[in-house]
Amino acid sequence: MCGVVGIAGKSPVNQMLFDALTMLQHRGQDAAGIVTCQDGRLFLRKDTGMVRDVFHTRHMRALQGNYGIGHVRYPTAGSSSSAEAQPFYVNSPYGITLAHNGNLTNAAEIHDDLFTTDLRHMNTDSDSEVLLNVFAHELQKRAKLTPSAEDVFHVVSRVHERCKGGYAVVAMITGQGLVGFRDPNGIRPLIYGSRETENGMEYIIASESVAITALGFKVERDIAPGEAIYITADGVMSTKQCAVAPEYRPCIFEYVYFARPDATIDGISVYKARLKMGEKLAQKILREWGDEHDIDVVIPIPDTSRTSALELANTLGVKFREGFMKNRYIGRTFIMPGQQLRKKSVRQKLNPVELEFQGKNVLLVDDSIVRGTTCNEIIQMARDAGAKKVFFASAAPMVKYPNVYGIDMPAKSELIASERSVEEIREIIGADRLIFQDLEDLKSAVRTKKVPELQDFDCSVFDGKYVAGGIDAEYLAALERKRNDSAKNEKPAYIDVNIDAASVDLTGVREE
Amino acid sequence: MCGVVGIAGKSPVNQMLFDALTMLQHRGQDAAGIVTCQDGRLFLRKDTGMVRDVFHTRHMRALQGNYGIGHVRYPTAGSSSSAEAQPFYVNSPYGITLAHNGNLTNAAEIHDDLFTTDLRHMNTDSDSEVLLNVFAHELQKRAKLTPSAEDVFHVVSRVHERCKGGYAVVAMITGQGLVGFRDPNGIRPLIYGSRETENGMEYIIASESVAITALGFKVERDIAPGEAIYITADGVMSTKQCAVAPEYRPCIFEYVYFARPDATIDGISVYKARLKMGEKLAQKILREWGDEHDIDVVIPIPDTSRTSALELANTLGVKFREGFMKNRYIGRTFIMPGQQLRKKSVRQKLNPVELEFQGKNVLLVDDSIVRGTTCNEIIQMARDAGAKKVFFASAAPMVKYPNVYGIDMPAKSELIASERSVEEIREIIGADRLIFQDLEDLKSAVRTKKVPELQDFDCSVFDGKYVAGGIDAEYLAALERKRNDSAKNEKPAYIDVNIDAASVDLTGVREE
Amino acid sequence: MCGVVGIAGKSPVNQMLFDALTMLQHRGQDAAGIVTCQDGRLFLRKDTGMVRDVFHTRHMRALQGNYGIGHVRYPTAGSSSSAEAQPFYVNSPYGITLAHNGNLTNAAEIHDDLFTTDLRHMNTDSDSEVLLNVFAHELQKRAKLTPSAEDVFHVVSRVHERCKGGYAVVAMITGQGLVGFRDPNGIRPLIYGSRETENGMEYIIASESVAITALGFKVERDIAPGEAIYITADGVMSTKQCAVAPEYRPCIFEYVYFARPDATIDGISVYKARLKMGEKLAQKILREWGDEHDIDVVIPIPDTSRTSALELANTLGVKFREGFMKNRYIGRTFIMPGQQLRKKSVRQKLNPVELEFQGKNVLLVDDSIVRGTTCNEIIQMARDAGAKKVFFASAAPMVKYPNVYGIDMPAKSELIASERSVEEIREIIGADRLIFQDLEDLKSAVRTKKVPELQDFDCSVFDGKYVAGGIDAEYLAALERKRNDSAKNEKPAYIDVNIDAASVDLTGVREE
Amino acid sequence: MCGVVGIAGKSPVNQMLFDALTMLQHRGQDAAGIVTCQDGRLFLRKDTGMVRDVFHTRHMRALQGNYGIGHVRYPTAGSSSSAEAQPFYVNSPYGITLAHNGNLTNAAEIHDDLFTTDLRHMNTDSDSEVLLNVFAHELQKRAKLTPSAEDVFHVVSRVHERCKGGYAVVAMITGQGLVGFRDPNGIRPLIYGSRETENGMEYIIASESVAITALGFKVERDIAPGEAIYITADGVMSTKQCAVAPEYRPCIFEYVYFARPDATIDGISVYKARLKMGEKLAQKILREWGDEHDIDVVIPIPDTSRTSALELANTLGVKFREGFMKNRYIGRTFIMPGQQLRKKSVRQKLNPVELEFQGKNVLLVDDSIVRGTTCNEIIQMARDAGAKKVFFASAAPMVKYPNVYGIDMPAKSELIASERSVEEIREIIGADRLIFQDLEDLKSAVRTKKVPELQDFDCSVFDGKYVAGGIDAEYLAALERKRNDSAKNEKPAYIDVNIDAASVDLTGVREE
Repeated sequence: MCGVVGIAGKSPVNQMLFDALTMLQHRGQDAAGIVTCQDGRLFLRKDTGMVRDVFHTRHMRALQGNYGIGHVRYPTAGSSSSAEAQPFYVNSPYGITLAHNGNLTNAAEIHDDLFTTDLRHMNTDSDSEVLLNVFAHELQKRAKLTPSAEDVFHVVSRVHERCKGGYAVVAMITGQGLVGFRDPNGIRPLIYGSRETENGMEYIIASESVAITALGFKVERDIAPGEAIYITADGVMSTKQCAVAPEYRPCIFEYVYFARPDATIDGISVYKARLKMGEKLAQKILREWGDEHDIDVVIPIPDTSRTSALELANTLGVKFREGFMKNRYIGRTFIMPGQQLRKKSVRQKLNPVELEFQGKNVLLVDDSIVRGTTCNEIIQMARDAGAKKVFFASAAPMVKYPNVYGIDMPAKSELIASERSVEEIREIIGADRLIFQDLEDLKSAVRTKKVPELQDFDCSVFDGKYVAGGIDAEYLAALERKRNDSAKNEKPAYIDVNIDAASVDLTGVREE
Repeated sequence: MCGVVGIAGKSPVNQMLFDALTMLQHRGQDAAGIVTCQDGRLFLRKDTGMVRDVFHTRHMRALQGNYGIGHVRYPTAGSSSSAEAQPFYVNSPYGITLAHNGNLTNAAEIHDDLFTTDLRHMNTDSDSEVLLNVFAHELQKRAKLTPSAEDVFHVVSRVHERCKGGYAVVAMITGQGLVGFRDPNGIRPLIYGSRETENGMEYIIASESVAITALGFKVERDIAPGEAIYITADGVMSTKQCAVAPEYRPCIFEYVYFARPDATIDGISVYKARLKMGEKLAQKILREWGDEHDIDVVIPIPDTSRTSALELANTLGVKFREGFMKNRYIGRTFIMPGQQLRKKSVRQKLNPVELEFQGKNVLLVDDSIVRGTTCNEIIQMARDAGAKKVFFASAAPMVKYPNVYGIDMPAKSELIASERSVEEIREIIGADRLIFQDLEDLKSAVRTKKVPELQDFDCSVFDGKYVAGGIDAEYLAALERKRNDSAKNEKPAYIDVNIDAASVDLTGVREE
Repeated sequence: MCGVVGIAGKSPVNQMLFDALTMLQHRGQDAAGIVTCQDGRLFLRKDTGMVRDVFHTRHMRALQGNYGIGHVRYPTAGSSSSAEAQPFYVNSPYGITLAHNGNLTNAAEIHDDLFTTDLRHMNTDSDSEVLLNVFAHELQKRAKLTPSAEDVFHVVSRVHERCKGGYAVVAMITGQGLVGFRDPNGIRPLIYGSRETENGMEYIIASESVAITALGFKVERDIAPGEAIYITADGVMSTKQCAVAPEYRPCIFEYVYFARPDATIDGISVYKARLKMGEKLAQKILREWGDEHDIDVVIPIPDTSRTSALELANTLGVKFREGFMKNRYIGRTFIMPGQQLRKKSVRQKLNPVELEFQGKNVLLVDDSIVRGTTCNEIIQMARDAGAKKVFFASAAPMVKYPNVYGIDMPAKSELIASERSVEEIREIIGADRLIFQDLEDLKSAVRTKKVPELQDFDCSVFDGKYVAGGIDAEYLAALERKRNDSAKNEKPAYIDVNIDAASVDLTGVREE
Repeated sequence: MCGVVGIAGKSPVNQMLFDALTMLQHRGQDAAGIVTCQDGRLFLRKDTGMVRDVFHTRHMRALQGNYGIGHVRYPTAGSSSSAEAQPFYVNSPYGITLAHNGNLTNAAEIHDDLFTTDLRHMNTDSDSEVLLNVFAHELQKRAKLTPSAEDVFHVVSRVHERCKGGYAVVAMITGQGLVGFRDPNGIRPLIYGSRETENGMEYIIASESVAITALGFKVERDIAPGEAIYITADGVMSTKQCAVAPEYRPCIFEYVYFARPDATIDGISVYKARLKMGEKLAQKILREWGDEHDIDVVIPIPDTSRTSALELANTLGVKFREGFMKNRYIGRTFIMPGQQLRKKSVRQKLNPVELEFQGKNVLLVDDSIVRGTTCNEIIQMARDAGAKKVFFASAAPMVKYPNVYGIDMPAKSELIASERSVEEIREIIGADRLIFQDLEDLKSAVRTKKVPELQDFDCSVFDGKYVAGGIDAEYLAALERKRNDSAKNEKPAYIDVNIDAASVDLTGVREE
């Protein structure tokens, strides 16, 4: 998962982009980047690391201009290299920079195509570089000194035709304007806002609403599936539906896990959706385990599941308690010559408050179960802390299929639920009882009357239906091989110094 | 507030000290340091910054040896310099390194004394350097090639005689042993644990129990007020009461705010104490506002008050909801040439979930109110989010007096409650209703039958009674001036490169 | 002035490129860069600073592949930004990287042209980026999946047609081959060599012969004016004359000052040329000052003039002595708050050995006189050291005109000789006598029978004749304004974070 | 070898100390340090690296005060750790900082003594830390609040009694004064100067005169063997002979190799001494090889031997030519995974100008021959460049014994001349003829009528007579073992993070 932001402002945007990326930091802590534009010149800084570590004062001072885009990255599992920070850049035509959240499922084919038809060199394995070059190639074909909004919208249409998958994109055409667009299913979120200033209207495009409101902008609305927004260098904004048959299918996992609880995505409050997940799950518990369940206390696995666990407890009429304390400061294990690497266990991330476990039947609630390995440890911690019985509830259904739209999930073979029954999983993780949300319940928890047009979602990790199409058994098998391979070779034999993955540092300034 | 740790191990302690400091990170995020000892040689690394930033692999590799101590620092307000990371070192006698949590209230007098009687130069304003030199001076007077445990305990007795204030200390006497001790009131916490290994017994001394259990040690017990513990280089452990008239008066603020909720301090579970604070406060609300209070929902100000707010809601029979989301990733504001510095408001730290406020009477709960400035903003945020009425409850009593035992609190004149009534404060912060915990309720919430010897606490910030003595009006007036001065001169005209505040970096190793 | 190198090898070239750049370091100490290619992927590292400071082990490890190019930069005076390290990169077509020594005199026109005809964005003021985009544009027009050597040579012809000025270029066409070429006058030097290995022939192209021989390659020959050399990815080498009417006019200043004395440029030994400069100048002294000149000792201004001064002394029959010691370690002056900046004088670079001055008539010899300001100081030092009379000799003629082919020289108005007579200059610098080499003598000193085709040189700084044409009064006036401006604004209001001037650092590798 | 400087000024000394260390950089490029004192507080910065790399603006700003000392280090071979930068510090008494050039030959005994009598811990293997603690211990015994100059001089006397070896020391007693002293034989150089300012007299003490004159101070005179100089905090200067039977025996190797040619040491011009070495050697050549020697040209091995080679050529009446060009920019060899380390040969440091060798009989001149390995390579280079015959001359006699007074020389077994005849050496290095200076000639070259009291020198590397005494066969055997061991273990198994070897960095200042 990644976070993107773009601002077409009337004053310098460096601090605003930095603040927005900070608000989106939960979407990717692996790398960050900002590019700004002033007087037809681009200024770029990107590097691996958290936002606070990537941008120093000297970088911020250099990031001049009123237009710019930014990115935080969470690496997609299949990616062979960790050296591909965004935004990416091509100099022809116009100088285009682009940042992207999601994943193209046909990147490899396009990659080869772009070379043979246009001799475009791509220096990384990133599908973002592919997407940028498709965009650039199509824009170049228009061959205008100054492309109109219509030209840009046409180019987005062409991107939709050529690129399969989920993508939410912000791009800057040097000296021309700022563009944002979303795949025809709206799998990845994108929303825009505006602000009246004394110099005119400013626009912001971002992955989540919190990045808009925190900056003092007003949320306008979500970008529709397939829609594009373009703000010219003069500040003229226009939008257009660029997809032939857009269909609203946002990724339901955003509500389950990824998005901030205080965000509103596609008109739906994430917080409220999570409350309702807790309520639905409680109803299923009552239905399946009976009224006279022997749960003494509901304990969330912090932080994500706290909201649903609270409402689950309320609905059950059982005490809600924070039985696990999360260590906010995560340590590392250093490799010492001659010492053996000790495994960092879940115990270094969570600490039980024994009081809440001793002699009780506890229901632990997590947002979802993916590999199942930490569940096992957590349940054991609960027992060690004195719990009589340990029940486990997942606010999401069983994760059975890999994600191909930009969520970093393990290979299918590593998903505990991919080929197992609930009972088999229960036994593996060592719970006394185990319950998963039903997919229909999850969907109805997320659905809201306020957004009638949004009736269905991409639930592919639960049901294996990949809404953007083009995913067959062969594709998934190749993906499985690739992820297994990259898992095996966690430390690649070589490290790329990719041109586009560059930490573009200040030159000419001696650090003192 | 600071955190200290010392380990007398049977294998390398660098990773253990690092892990312990990570567990104590909440006690001080301003600086960190570790010193280890091997074959009579010391290895030191300290610098400003978080634990994760101060120690890199090259430092860890250099921190060799089975004995060592560590420190995380939260700067004490009055300190004129931010350049004084711990541990401190003197080479005579033996080479002694020391780390300390707390504050000496008579450091200035001792400082002068140490120079005139012993020509000892101190290069910083830190009271820790003073404490170390008192310790060193007294130990030197024993003039032994190998000091016995009795010698060390005698020296601690002399420290108790000469030093006034609150202090929890770990120190290492190169080649001789590891010592820990606590002031005669036990104001600052100190606890020790042990672990059986195949090479013999290992000991750990730390500020909080979590640092002991997280490392797989077993908690033995809290160090008593005035008591010292000494582990020789051979691993022989002994303890002794070194104070003439010790009296148990730990700082009650540890339970209110500082300590981790999963810690047990002086036999008392911090988590349980906080639950009871919520319960007591709920009872007062019922008592004062009546059964038919019109609170719709209880909302904690994250993170500390969540535990007490939850039990408060339970006791009131009102819904508990997490109406504020905390931004885990804190931004910065960069100073740009020609741009004006924008104030970072509370809004960048907290985000309201509007759903939980709209049309409701909300009771906001915080652990305490110090300056009162953020209360104001938070209450306004609640109103902006649609709250009908906003009530405010403080789990601690009114903070009326400055702290002189190591907590970084503002000058008395900046404490909102120092000279005001509850009604005056309510008006200033803009709440519809305001309630503070009673001091007696707070004490009874913390007290437990399991620790009968612990009947009273240092509650000086609430009642102005400084348990360690020696604090008069003149002292407080001088403190007020000093804190006001240092507030005014936030950026000191010069920056110390103190020898002892050194970031002792690896030399001889070219970074590549 | 800059230095370039390119290697088409049969084994990794990172260390070889590093060593070559070290040998060329005297040609530019301002910035350095290397790009290598492996399996169609580029690896780049560039930053400001000396070669030894720019490349660390982690960069070298990342610079993988058997083909690569490198660059050291000496900033051209007119350049508005110091943030433009080379090599530069464009991704379309093929991915081309390029490094260049020299200067285009019509870069501004081409820049605009490239945008209007091809929408190519250039992000810096560097003429190297212009040159790269011309090359890329012309290559793209050929529209071949695999360009032949003939295609590449055709593209070089087109570059010659469009670009005016002096340039020696190495470029790498990703996955295709390595190309080197030189402007039709051969103003900037370029030479190539080869080496037989067990895996086949390796080729190297470099600015000076020393970079070839130091790596254990054999010098083949200088690239002729207008000629290009191309080595395919398979290692097949070919050369072709690509200019319509090439004319051999290398820059004579290479022999006077820039090149290493142990280099051979265009078949001429720089060392030998300098010896002959000394001889010619001695003859002029005898001619003009007479046999009975009263020179007691000849003293060079180290380092460049030592060779000519020695032969000058021999020819005069006067003692040669090293009266000035050069400080190899250059200090800096730090700006302290509240302290005034002290001017670093020549005295911190040179120290007189008083013994050699006391009571003597000394002839100081320098390679040339540009601004004349240091002459003044040096002459005063000689007097202070006790010299009776101080004579001054310049191994080069009077520098009267600005350089437009890549040498960083001051604006015309700052050249001491631009509008003054020898007598006027003598008075300004305070010498008792002053003599300049005659231009004809300089030319005949450099000319050698071994290279009969090389009869004339670019001597534009001496005679104002710009061999590559297109330089008129208007051009020079514009240059004058620009250099004066940039002199005035030594610290630019903003600092570029240019994409192409990037320090492309390792990402994904936490420094420890 | 090392360089030291101390300044007792009337205005900030940071820049002055920096400039002085830059002038002394040739004496040690391995580490650098400065400590200053203001208002009784010390400010320290030290690290490995060149002066220009160790001190950044932020360090310089922190180095406040009008008194300070500095150090550049060349590691002594036997030292087990490369992590011991100077100055060193002890806090008791007064806070003393010290920097030292030379070597104590009885450091190990004193080390143990200091612990048993005074419990003083030393954390490194550096003899400088020993020297500092002797000084501190003796000063503490005087037990004065304010020590007088007489106290300080008495302490220096005690140092002379206890410490054997060669040492030139500057030390600062915090708040008291600045002291400099030299061992009773004056083996290592120390000189002082002064400057009248409007605020009073300023004093400087340094290893070489160039550091004094370059700063605009006037050289007063060399410190005599055994003498001390003390400047109080009030600026009162006094000197005293503190040794019982001082005897003038400076290290003759300073003139041969270490000192800058423009320095004057113990009243003798290094430059002049080198000229005379050339003259003496020429006379020996004429004597031994006869008038009709067949030398065509004299070529120095740059840089040190250039002065003597020039006069040697003059005396012989043979041409002097710079046949070798020195590469000023030294490369490194990076260790690549899977690649073999290539040996850096002399060829990367020197480049022959073939012209000067072809068909000629060349006499190569070097300042001395130590291991003889590079001679071999250089002679081969001369032959490869076309020399007919290659003769070799050493301006110093045969180096037969190890140095124990601070010069980093190899173990005796590695000295080519230790057990060999001239003929044997000639054969090994492959010269056609080989000649060494006679020791008596060397002495007479250095001796001057202007300094009649200086009749003899420490020539121990040539004659095995160690002037400071206490060196017997057992000592030398132990040294041999130690140096061989440290040679074998070039990369120590662990790296010290010594407290006193600290890079004392700025803390509290976030680098941006």
